[in-house]
Amino acid sequence: MRDVPDSHAELLREPLTAVLSTIGPDGQPQSTAVWYLVDGMDLTVSVRTDRQKYRNVLRDPRATLFVIDPTNSVRTLELRCVVEIRDDPTTAHAAKFTPTYGAPPSAWDPEGIERAVLVLTPMHVVTLG
Amino acid sequence: MRDVPDSHAELLREPLTAVLSTIGPDGQPQSTAVWYLVDGMDLTVSVRTDRQKYRNVLRDPRATLFVIDPTNSVRTLELRCVVEIRDDPTTAHAAKFTPTYGAPPSAWDPEGIERAVLVLTPMHVVTLG
Repeated sequence: MRDVPDSHAELLREPLTAVLSTIGPDGQPQSTAVWYLVDGMDLTVSVRTDRQKYRNVLRDPRATLFVIDPTNSVRTLELRCVVEIRDDPTTAHAAKFTPTYGAPPSAWDPEGIERAVLVLTPMHVVTLG
Repeated sequence: MRDVPDSHAELLREPLTAVLSTIGPDGQPQSTAVWYLVDGMDLTVSVRTDRQKYRNVLRDPRATLFVIDPTNSVRTLELRCVVEIRDDPTTAHAAKFTPTYGAPPSAWDPEGIERAVLVLTPMHVVTLG
């Protein structure tokens, strides 16, 4: 991933849980736990379109992905990103998570739920530790 | 802590690392890893006053604390808070972290660095898992 130093790049390749923070309708940060995947040149997150974070990025495309090294909690990677939204009507993108995470993020979706892909472009990268 | 259901309350008592997200000067969420402490009736975080997150909450007192259960990453606690800032000139507040975390968050501060206390009042609580 462009702009992510080698010292922290493997945090993007491991099957970790990150925190994605978006801006709520009232300006308050909203945070949720997400899986993420480097898909070709893109850093991506799969989201249900009935979720608050999806509505948030539709309104304000700024989101920050934050990863803590689970073996060393002072080693962190913060990616302040602009989000591009792509539809995922067949969950073909969600299925790409299976080799890394053992299941697609859509595995527990109720029937009829739609998914979208958030493509995260880091505008500012902060590493610690 | 008020408004935090019993199902997730112990996530506030254990010595975990949370993610604190604030709003940067350009409106982008900023996230960092923090220790946190229930101090009497207050949920508190200790911050260096030379840090971006301190400047962020001076300007916009909305911050969100997010905790992931380290034994079950789908179990999460999101506290969307308003922040009150108190000075901590003698690091007396930072010292209160030692029994829980084994050290004060000020242990690695360069000489001359000042600390403040962020007192987090949850306005909205979201639990998952």
